[in-house]
Amino acid sequence: MPNITLIGAGSASFSLSLIRDVIVTEGLAGSRMTLVDINEERLNVAATLANRYRDEAKADLTFSATTDRKKGLEGADFVICAVKIGGYGPLEKEREIAEAHGYYRGIGDRVSCYYGGVGAYHQLRFLMDLARDMEAICPDAYLIQTANPVFEATNIVTRCTKLKAVGVCHGHWGYRAIARTLGLDLEDVGVLMAGFNHHVWMMRFMYKGEDAYPLIDKWIEEESEEFWRDGEYAEEMAPGVIDTYRLYGCFPVGDAVRCATPWWHHTNFEAKKKWFGKTGGFDSQIGWTNYLDGKPKAFEKMQRLANDPDVVLTEELPLKAGDEQHIKIIDAIANDKQKLLELNIPNNGCIKGIPDDVLVEIPVVVSGGGFQGVMVGDFPARVMHNVMIPRWVRMENILEAFLTGDRRPLVLSLMDDGRTRSYEQAKGLIDLLLDQPWNEEAAKHYRW
Amino acid sequence: MPNITLIGAGSASFSLSLIRDVIVTEGLAGSRMTLVDINEERLNVAATLANRYRDEAKADLTFSATTDRKKGLEGADFVICAVKIGGYGPLEKEREIAEAHGYYRGIGDRVSCYYGGVGAYHQLRFLMDLARDMEAICPDAYLIQTANPVFEATNIVTRCTKLKAVGVCHGHWGYRAIARTLGLDLEDVGVLMAGFNHHVWMMRFMYKGEDAYPLIDKWIEEESEEFWRDGEYAEEMAPGVIDTYRLYGCFPVGDAVRCATPWWHHTNFEAKKKWFGKTGGFDSQIGWTNYLDGKPKAFEKMQRLANDPDVVLTEELPLKAGDEQHIKIIDAIANDKQKLLELNIPNNGCIKGIPDDVLVEIPVVVSGGGFQGVMVGDFPARVMHNVMIPRWVRMENILEAFLTGDRRPLVLSLMDDGRTRSYEQAKGLIDLLLDQPWNEEAAKHYRW
Repeated sequence: MPNITLIGAGSASFSLSLIRDVIVTEGLAGSRMTLVDINEERLNVAATLANRYRDEAKADLTFSATTDRKKGLEGADFVICAVKIGGYGPLEKEREIAEAHGYYRGIGDRVSCYYGGVGAYHQLRFLMDLARDMEAICPDAYLIQTANPVFEATNIVTRCTKLKAVGVCHGHWGYRAIARTLGLDLEDVGVLMAGFNHHVWMMRFMYKGEDAYPLIDKWIEEESEEFWRDGEYAEEMAPGVIDTYRLYGCFPVGDAVRCATPWWHHTNFEAKKKWFGKTGGFDSQIGWTNYLDGKPKAFEKMQRLANDPDVVLTEELPLKAGDEQHIKIIDAIANDKQKLLELNIPNNGCIKGIPDDVLVEIPVVVSGGGFQGVMVGDFPARVMHNVMIPRWVRMENILEAFLTGDRRPLVLSLMDDGRTRSYEQAKGLIDLLLDQPWNEEAAKHYRW
Repeated sequence: MPNITLIGAGSASFSLSLIRDVIVTEGLAGSRMTLVDINEERLNVAATLANRYRDEAKADLTFSATTDRKKGLEGADFVICAVKIGGYGPLEKEREIAEAHGYYRGIGDRVSCYYGGVGAYHQLRFLMDLARDMEAICPDAYLIQTANPVFEATNIVTRCTKLKAVGVCHGHWGYRAIARTLGLDLEDVGVLMAGFNHHVWMMRFMYKGEDAYPLIDKWIEEESEEFWRDGEYAEEMAPGVIDTYRLYGCFPVGDAVRCATPWWHHTNFEAKKKWFGKTGGFDSQIGWTNYLDGKPKAFEKMQRLANDPDVVLTEELPLKAGDEQHIKIIDAIANDKQKLLELNIPNNGCIKGIPDDVLVEIPVVVSGGGFQGVMVGDFPARVMHNVMIPRWVRMENILEAFLTGDRRPLVLSLMDDGRTRSYEQAKGLIDLLLDQPWNEEAAKHYRW
């Protein structure tokens, strides 16, 4: 049975949900899981919960825990990467600095947690270090890469190593909120979603075997105004999303609601409120602060659960498969069960006009044979030219800067930001961000 | 011997230089040339000069002239297109309107004559009309397309028709000014230039068999300051060009000096003067006004020459082949003489990362078999991602708007302009430009 290593296991609630998924997956009984995190306190909480949850469920599953990544990789068949290097503090400070230079909410991919800081340096460095360790210790293991930026950080691994790597996200489930808003029975909804991570579009939307895009048009005409009236609504159907659909002729799904909507929806809080509701949406100062505030609370809850032997964990987290795809991938590969998932793999011709070695998020058939992308074909022209290609280019600039240690691609990329007024503004900001103490190593890496 | 039809022959000096090139090309004796222009006055001047020049040269060359395009295409083997629809008046008014909306010098490709107005509508419409006529009247003729925008207007023909079309420009000769500034003997200079029309880069620059890029670096270090001191210098070596070389790692050639240098070199007259000398360069209000002022003078000179039987034309324009490539193409094809020229043809893999059906300006082997592109391979990453791909996308937006009659790609494209502050600004300007009387047909074509 497979050995599964979870890097970044200190996110105890995420770890527990993966463990739950392993336990409810029949074919994975007897698996061994190794929890890895550099934070011993968090790792202990996760390990305690893991063992108790397994015992309650009477599952055949072995755990070990280590702060030593290399040790954790020994014998691994699957490595799940879910790290966030450096926490949120530096990130929020980078955002503040960027705001003072004219970039509302910072220069990331809208929710600037996606990059984890300027140039995505810390996340890319970690992924490449991890990948090199895997090549040395478990070269045949699959890397199931779910750490942001999924696009850049997985793409650098698929380009620069021989590892079998796949990027995993859950954003595509956003289509359910669209269907729900339209009052459709999810059972009868069929969707083809494709794009890049956080830039996923509904290429086809079917209901009971017929094109359901006209149902969106009808909803816009007849119901949207009422839906938007009080300023509180599912972001998946926000005015900004409908405007994006009007502009590009295709419907964005999941995180694309933020990341693939046009820059002029996000220039300041007024614009955010106009397009995403009275809190300005998930990545406004209100939405994001709420999200960050929830983080320590979530960990405190995990600590409380771990420390209270009277809590029944399987009541807190019932034994029922969740939405995340990580364990489904492992089941499909380890047991050669064909599954159709929504994953990030090199394009290899699936989306026309995107180079073969660029990571795309598309339907993928997973089996004992690995990953087979589903042919998507042509993208709608306006989306391709005005959203997809510019996003692809940004990825290239970030990887080019990282791989060559050249600061210029970072500045050039920022010159393409609709909020940039001058070269001095962009160069000054990149230099200043790299001057911060937590970026000391990055500043040495990215040279002029 | 070939029948050559020249569309837009009313540009008498250009026509005369082509005639001169035919006359000095041994293999083209006996050719027939048909001069076509809708302006009868200009056409008569051109025809008078053509006949007198031929007689002086005692050349075996027959001329006819007509204002009827279809008639002019009958029996054509080669059609040279050099039209500029609508003249410069409307264009200059569009520029003024754009300036009032925050776009210094308008929204074209720097020198906004390149598009001939918003969306390049008039030029694209003409080219497609001409191409349809050719398909009906002379489907086997070659279209030698030199009317701006060479990129878009030739690409629409190669994509949408079965004509054998090639785009021709002379911008690449700009490398000579670079070599001259460095004090190099042109005989010993070797260059590989590639890109898109008006976006050509020196991929290789050799002198006496060795890499000559270090000679540029040395010149920058030791001579550039002195060279720039009085603010009057060859634009090919302007501070803006050197800055572009520093940013992207490759040297722009010819019109790329204006069109492929970054947007922040062109935001206002101060920036233009800083980067391109005290007149602000060829496309500043000073440079461009000088150029426009020269146009009627040039035609008056042609009229004077035509009306004065005592003038010896072969003294005015000596019998010596010029730099333009049009007639060389015809000689290569009609007489199956292999020639290596710098032309615009569909990429078909020659520049890596650019789709096959995108027109590229590269070295092309021309012969009786037609056009064979020379494999260029990888482009330097920073140029590719930050200049070439955005320029390719702009072409796609212009063609998409034209082919679908959709106004959105025009606005979306303008949203990517570094000077655009809001959607309303861009949409308002596109709408206003299309509202002008000379754009009545275009306004009906591009719908919301």
